[in-house]
Amino acid sequence: MCGSSSLRILQGNLSLSFEPLAKYRRTLQFPPPSLFPVSTDLKPSIMSLTIKLHVVPHTIPHTAIRRAPVAAVTNVKLLVGKPIYGANELLPFLYRRTTRSRNMKGAVLPAIKSSLIDPDGGALVDLVVPEGERAAKVSEAEGLPKVKLTKVDVEWVHVVSEGWASPLRGFMREDEYLQSLHFNSLRMEDGKVVNMSLPIVLAIDDGTKESIGSAKDVALLGPDGDVIAILRSIEIYKHNKEERIARTWGTTAPGLPYVEESITQAGNWLIGGDLEVLKPIKYNDGLDHYRLSPKELRKEFDKRGADAVFAFQLRNPVHNGHALLMNDTRRRLLDMGYKNPILLLHPLGGFVKADDVPLDVRMEQHSKVLEDKVLDPETTIVAIFPSPMHYAGPTEVQWHAKARINAGANFYIVGRDPAGMGHPVEKRDLYDPDHGKKVLSMAPGLEKLNILPFRVAAYDTVAKKMAFFDPSRAQDFLFISGTKMRTFAKTGENPPDGFMCPGGWKVLVKYYESLQTEDTKQQKPAAVSA
Amino acid sequence: MCGSSSLRILQGNLSLSFEPLAKYRRTLQFPPPSLFPVSTDLKPSIMSLTIKLHVVPHTIPHTAIRRAPVAAVTNVKLLVGKPIYGANELLPFLYRRTTRSRNMKGAVLPAIKSSLIDPDGGALVDLVVPEGERAAKVSEAEGLPKVKLTKVDVEWVHVVSEGWASPLRGFMREDEYLQSLHFNSLRMEDGKVVNMSLPIVLAIDDGTKESIGSAKDVALLGPDGDVIAILRSIEIYKHNKEERIARTWGTTAPGLPYVEESITQAGNWLIGGDLEVLKPIKYNDGLDHYRLSPKELRKEFDKRGADAVFAFQLRNPVHNGHALLMNDTRRRLLDMGYKNPILLLHPLGGFVKADDVPLDVRMEQHSKVLEDKVLDPETTIVAIFPSPMHYAGPTEVQWHAKARINAGANFYIVGRDPAGMGHPVEKRDLYDPDHGKKVLSMAPGLEKLNILPFRVAAYDTVAKKMAFFDPSRAQDFLFISGTKMRTFAKTGENPPDGFMCPGGWKVLVKYYESLQTEDTKQQKPAAVSA
Repeated sequence: MCGSSSLRILQGNLSLSFEPLAKYRRTLQFPPPSLFPVSTDLKPSIMSLTIKLHVVPHTIPHTAIRRAPVAAVTNVKLLVGKPIYGANELLPFLYRRTTRSRNMKGAVLPAIKSSLIDPDGGALVDLVVPEGERAAKVSEAEGLPKVKLTKVDVEWVHVVSEGWASPLRGFMREDEYLQSLHFNSLRMEDGKVVNMSLPIVLAIDDGTKESIGSAKDVALLGPDGDVIAILRSIEIYKHNKEERIARTWGTTAPGLPYVEESITQAGNWLIGGDLEVLKPIKYNDGLDHYRLSPKELRKEFDKRGADAVFAFQLRNPVHNGHALLMNDTRRRLLDMGYKNPILLLHPLGGFVKADDVPLDVRMEQHSKVLEDKVLDPETTIVAIFPSPMHYAGPTEVQWHAKARINAGANFYIVGRDPAGMGHPVEKRDLYDPDHGKKVLSMAPGLEKLNILPFRVAAYDTVAKKMAFFDPSRAQDFLFISGTKMRTFAKTGENPPDGFMCPGGWKVLVKYYESLQTEDTKQQKPAAVSA
Repeated sequence: MCGSSSLRILQGNLSLSFEPLAKYRRTLQFPPPSLFPVSTDLKPSIMSLTIKLHVVPHTIPHTAIRRAPVAAVTNVKLLVGKPIYGANELLPFLYRRTTRSRNMKGAVLPAIKSSLIDPDGGALVDLVVPEGERAAKVSEAEGLPKVKLTKVDVEWVHVVSEGWASPLRGFMREDEYLQSLHFNSLRMEDGKVVNMSLPIVLAIDDGTKESIGSAKDVALLGPDGDVIAILRSIEIYKHNKEERIARTWGTTAPGLPYVEESITQAGNWLIGGDLEVLKPIKYNDGLDHYRLSPKELRKEFDKRGADAVFAFQLRNPVHNGHALLMNDTRRRLLDMGYKNPILLLHPLGGFVKADDVPLDVRMEQHSKVLEDKVLDPETTIVAIFPSPMHYAGPTEVQWHAKARINAGANFYIVGRDPAGMGHPVEKRDLYDPDHGKKVLSMAPGLEKLNILPFRVAAYDTVAKKMAFFDPSRAQDFLFISGTKMRTFAKTGENPPDGFMCPGGWKVLVKYYESLQTEDTKQQKPAAVSA
């Protein structure tokens, strides 16, 4: 439904209130006083204000439809808008959650597909150069100053190139960097705010800066020397590592895994610009088929006819506690009236700290979980989220959620201490375990995402299965940490029945045994500890 | 002008575009998906959307009016709205910048007064208990658990009680604290965002927490034991000092003045709640008459018939470079068409580091600057901003600007390295000197404030006066720092002609001489150094 009317105004406030949701009230000042800076040419003049109401093809929970008599809206004219994803034409205002529906002229509309949530900035960024243009770009790149990337830098190129960070189109320039650092969000040209909690930046050293000189574009080389991208209209600015670390992690203590991997040794300059990626980033590790781009994921959700997508971020093996909450979430979505909620089981695939279980082992474990039907393969998509891990708690969980908006998930599950870890120096959690979900629920730019906080699950020694923790009988519950799992595997002991599906556990035992063998071989403590 | 129309809708996007200002476009999703959480009762139902256009009684620069033919807006109906400050009735749509104007019915309207900018949250917070209720509150307070305040805590009570931090109504609860720390802003119940870059919090130790037990309200005692306020509906949460410091200052290096004064020794808990202040905070230092509240300042701007107020925050003596840019700003505002721009010269009056010039000396110096007519007393208001100083650079400058919105200033001057200082450990500025103005110009919630960045002024040895620094002849300019001023005063040397008015300089010489005397007396290095 689109309707628009125009009004010529000079100055004023526009208040919008939605009843009975008094909380959802907005006031816009027009024009904003910041448009009257002393030195600008933008002087107020007669401007027209267009108000346009555009109904997006969201699905509407049954409960809503029951309360919405058709008569109440028959006076609203419906026009067809252009959806960004999926094959939806704009649906009649009251969509009845049948798989086929009729538009205003009585024509049959296609089944509702994804388009469950718009990507940040309205359209998914895709920075991979079309095949026909690649040869020319590669030869252009040869004549440009070169910047050599680390493995983690390449992961970021991958992330940005596929639009996980939409609307970001490259490594951050200083304006974006400062907004990310101070506000965890970016204000777009159109005034809208998108979430962006982690600085996505590329560091270079003095020598590289000098070699770039006054060039406008540079070529980015992978660790093996291949040209993988061009960075356009570059901007070089200072890399204040201390400030970046302090504002991102809320600590400057030594021993933060990402800092040690990617910041401490990095150069003192950051280089921002627009990316053109010369071909899709591949890892050739046998897992590339799991690396679905946001575009591919959205297509997959369409294909499966999802009417809700709930994402679960993880970097650990899936135990039955995880499964419990994923299945419970599905049940709750069905209760709400959704017919086909799809789970995006979305393990993080980029840099992780040395004592996390490696990606290949996790992927094998996850596939067993589906084989064993702990999660329903029909309604679950397993894919790799290519981002590196910061372990930056409440700051990073926003990134994890925001990237899943871009991938088409409109529900995001958040648990205890997301993206957290132990303090690297003190004997405590680095973050308050409740701050992640609190910060997520308040984060600018994430208002359109449904945040689903979950109760923590643990092994219920009475019921002999994983269950939601009940504080009134805390003594009955057993928390099984990574360390504990490793100890089980080491001693050949099985975890309690019902902790993890046998197929999945076998994968872990094999992995932990291989570590032990390595430990013994090296005759020194393994790099992997809990 | 108010007009409203109502529409019953279920779900959609509302786009607002203002032409020709394409940048000022907004899209609101309705209802926001976050209103569909799994566990809430808020289910979509038929809701009505009210769109209301409200013209605020802003002044409109002449340039705008020239371009705005009356005919273009004659079809717009004007209604009278209720302004929050000043005696304005809502003005006819095209205000002609005469001192008197006519409304739609031809009635003469009063001269336009302040109301230049709305306080954050719409109304100024005033937390001082009305006189009639004080006795009862004091005796109630006697029965409550007690929390003893430091000098800096009292400064914050003062700040919050007068509405400088509007819409904040007390010390922050955890939700506010987290938003301030992560986003430098608060989202209000109505969805609007206000800036709030510094956590305004009250720390208590374990013993105090224990003594409070499960009480809902506590009494706050000044350093001398007087009850000064009640804190209502309290919430106690963890004070993670490391995280607070890292996220506020972007460093955890030892030697940050505010941290050493107010955080290191403070308790491990924060207590938030709503303040009721039992009587206005006074310092009895002979300077209370300079401590105008935001309400009093707004009245004063009205009284002087200001049509623009530009604020200048400082914590140093005023030299002719400062005066140059304040006078230059006034000239630019007059060029824009404002008839009576008023300068708010607004020295910070709370905690400052040991080597800053003390408040009483600064106030004496400032009054000489006005006596010597370096600044025009007719168009300048000198008042004290009661906040303590964090020296937190880009984070703090937002607070400085936001508080001045509440005081009625619609223009804010920002210079090089605002609220900055040297790194406490390394030999460099703690902040990039350009970050302050950049961050300020992008800060959420400050969009309605006009930010006026200024070029740095220095002593031009050719022109023999303070002038805007010209990088093309950098060698001609002399930067005179606080250290340098002190050396001049020490050696009895005068600064170059035209650096500072003689009356103001005399005040400083007297002060620096008193320090030297003290130094000699103490036979050890003074606490005051540059």
